[in-house]
Amino acid sequence: MTNHRIALIPGDGIGTEVLPPAQQVLDAVGRRHGFTFSCTSYDDWSCERYLREGAMMPADGLDQLRDKDAVLLGAVGRPDVPDHVSLWGLLIPIRRGFRQYVNLRPVRVFEGIDSPVRGATAAEVDFVVVRENVEGEYSEIGGRLHRGFPEEAAVQESVFTRAGVTRVLDYAFGLAASRGGRLTSATKSNGIVHTLPFWDELVAERGAAHPGVAWDQEHIDALAAKFVLEPARFDVVVGSNLFGDILSDLAAAVAGSIGIAPAANLNPEREFPSMFEPVHGSAPDIAGRGVANPLGAIWSAALMLDHLGHPGAAKDVTDAIAAVLAKTDVRTPDLGGTATTAEFTEALLELL
Amino acid sequence: MTNHRIALIPGDGIGTEVLPPAQQVLDAVGRRHGFTFSCTSYDDWSCERYLREGAMMPADGLDQLRDKDAVLLGAVGRPDVPDHVSLWGLLIPIRRGFRQYVNLRPVRVFEGIDSPVRGATAAEVDFVVVRENVEGEYSEIGGRLHRGFPEEAAVQESVFTRAGVTRVLDYAFGLAASRGGRLTSATKSNGIVHTLPFWDELVAERGAAHPGVAWDQEHIDALAAKFVLEPARFDVVVGSNLFGDILSDLAAAVAGSIGIAPAANLNPEREFPSMFEPVHGSAPDIAGRGVANPLGAIWSAALMLDHLGHPGAAKDVTDAIAAVLAKTDVRTPDLGGTATTAEFTEALLELL
Ligand SMILES: CC(C)[C@H](C(=O)O)[C@@H](O)C(=O)O
Ligand SMILES: CC(C)[C@H](C(=O)O)[C@@H](O)C(=O)O
Repeated sequence: MTNHRIALIPGDGIGTEVLPPAQQVLDAVGRRHGFTFSCTSYDDWSCERYLREGAMMPADGLDQLRDKDAVLLGAVGRPDVPDHVSLWGLLIPIRRGFRQYVNLRPVRVFEGIDSPVRGATAAEVDFVVVRENVEGEYSEIGGRLHRGFPEEAAVQESVFTRAGVTRVLDYAFGLAASRGGRLTSATKSNGIVHTLPFWDELVAERGAAHPGVAWDQEHIDALAAKFVLEPARFDVVVGSNLFGDILSDLAAAVAGSIGIAPAANLNPEREFPSMFEPVHGSAPDIAGRGVANPLGAIWSAALMLDHLGHPGAAKDVTDAIAAVLAKTDVRTPDLGGTATTAEFTEALLELL
Repeated sequence: MTNHRIALIPGDGIGTEVLPPAQQVLDAVGRRHGFTFSCTSYDDWSCERYLREGAMMPADGLDQLRDKDAVLLGAVGRPDVPDHVSLWGLLIPIRRGFRQYVNLRPVRVFEGIDSPVRGATAAEVDFVVVRENVEGEYSEIGGRLHRGFPEEAAVQESVFTRAGVTRVLDYAFGLAASRGGRLTSATKSNGIVHTLPFWDELVAERGAAHPGVAWDQEHIDALAAKFVLEPARFDVVVGSNLFGDILSDLAAAVAGSIGIAPAANLNPEREFPSMFEPVHGSAPDIAGRGVANPLGAIWSAALMLDHLGHPGAAKDVTDAIAAVLAKTDVRTPDLGGTATTAEFTEALLELL
């Protein structure tokens, strides 16, 4: 029987409350489909650890994860720890150290959750945002000059490499080929005149290499508008690190699912473990009360199943999510219900 | 009687069709409020000129505009001229050469135009996006290395200066003080770790200097989501060149007014003329048919009136826009009607 070694990093706040439900769901589908998980939990990797020991994770953290098949992460962040510490001390080093150059975020409207956008229905809105995840605008290159003086300035370098852009585009074109066959690239080459014209050239080049995919491009300002005006129009949308980040949150909002959206940080070559995480944060305002919505973590676990080679099991999980939303009125408070995390998980497990 | 010297730059496509209606409206409110305009039209500054003579405007273009009180621009761009030529040859040199460091975009839901977002009503959604307009991510600094080789890369430097950020923030805080007293700053300092933490520091500094304004900040990904989820929550939103660009288009989409949105490129110190332009482009698909929607240009003219010191006249114009949308069903095809540009303008003029 296949066994998968999973690293669990609950992290901070509700991160610790949403991973156990995801584990329960994984165990249940594993039993049904004939595979198992051995999980190692890194409970300590968190802001608490940072406040105590000065680092979010041990110096050899990545080495401890290296032999795992995947990482499932809860949430990172706490109000008394600056984001650049918590994120750049844990989340981003894993993305970069494990060459997780694809950030994949599916966007679906579920029956039973209202989209804030008129006419955005479950039948019509079903697309994927593919975000470049390890270079681009999120760079460590830059700094400050004349600090504190009137002539002070900050500079930051965006870096786009042919290798880095090509591999994420090839992933996105490949995904588009396996789905509807349509791809939209986010650009802003009319305003950002060095990096984004390069991006556009590579899109045209990779587009020519994937003749089965119809592609177009839109400037990010117009594209953000179209996400609201015609969300049903999209199939695979690919963007740089920053544009993908903005578009994927916006898309989740349009779908009404910002609280339950999942993300996969993929190393498609499987040289390193990939990482799966709900998009919601650590939500300190509701942490510790047992009412966190577990669907983001569970949906992320479904993406992990897919990556581990179990698309059928993954579909069972997303079907159960769809069913619990469409067919029951069990819901956590963020969705207008009164159920606890445990009750919501229980209702979903019954439908699995 | 006060006379204002206006430069008209119709530009390309429907740009040439929407300026005459704006001029008619200006003349009409001028008669009522007792001021006049002398307009100089730069009909030739366009992509056509570029194709003929290799430049969008003459070498001394800015000097020709320098003694004007304001510039009213139609639209720039044509499918057979690359954007970086048409925009960086006309629009952006004027923004930069005339230190128009504020790009102001009001966002309103008008009765009679449906917002795509449920519950976004005319009574509730009324805010302003203030965008830094001359530095930041839109920079000319950067380039390409190893062109055409596997190790090719493009780099682009974002530059934020204390002077440049402070002045746009002071404008935004001042505007917030004169309105509801609330300001939201767009950031992404958790991912873009050099320039945006600097932006955040300056927001805190200018916030302390404007104690009457309650302010907060949101990461651009979350903020884009909130524009869809709670558009009524915003009053003044301030962002960098790129973030302001994205947010203002997104906001117009949320308000249902992407086709009629106006923009002011302001030099608040009045050292140089400010420039006013509808947000819509040159729309080559409908150009020459006399059916372009003139409201973006007319609303832009209202922003110009405000800047020229005629807030009462400006309000008459926006009231007439609101009235023609709420009280008549005269509309151009983009709004689902059958009226021509001239008929729509006539209907509006009757309500002035
Ligand atoms: C055309 C483009 C360069 C421009 C910009 O991004 O500044 C436009 O989108 C705008 O908002 O005025
Ligand atoms: C927390 C932040 C650095 C992160 C990002 O922008 O990458 C988050 O927004 C995400 O989308 O995973």
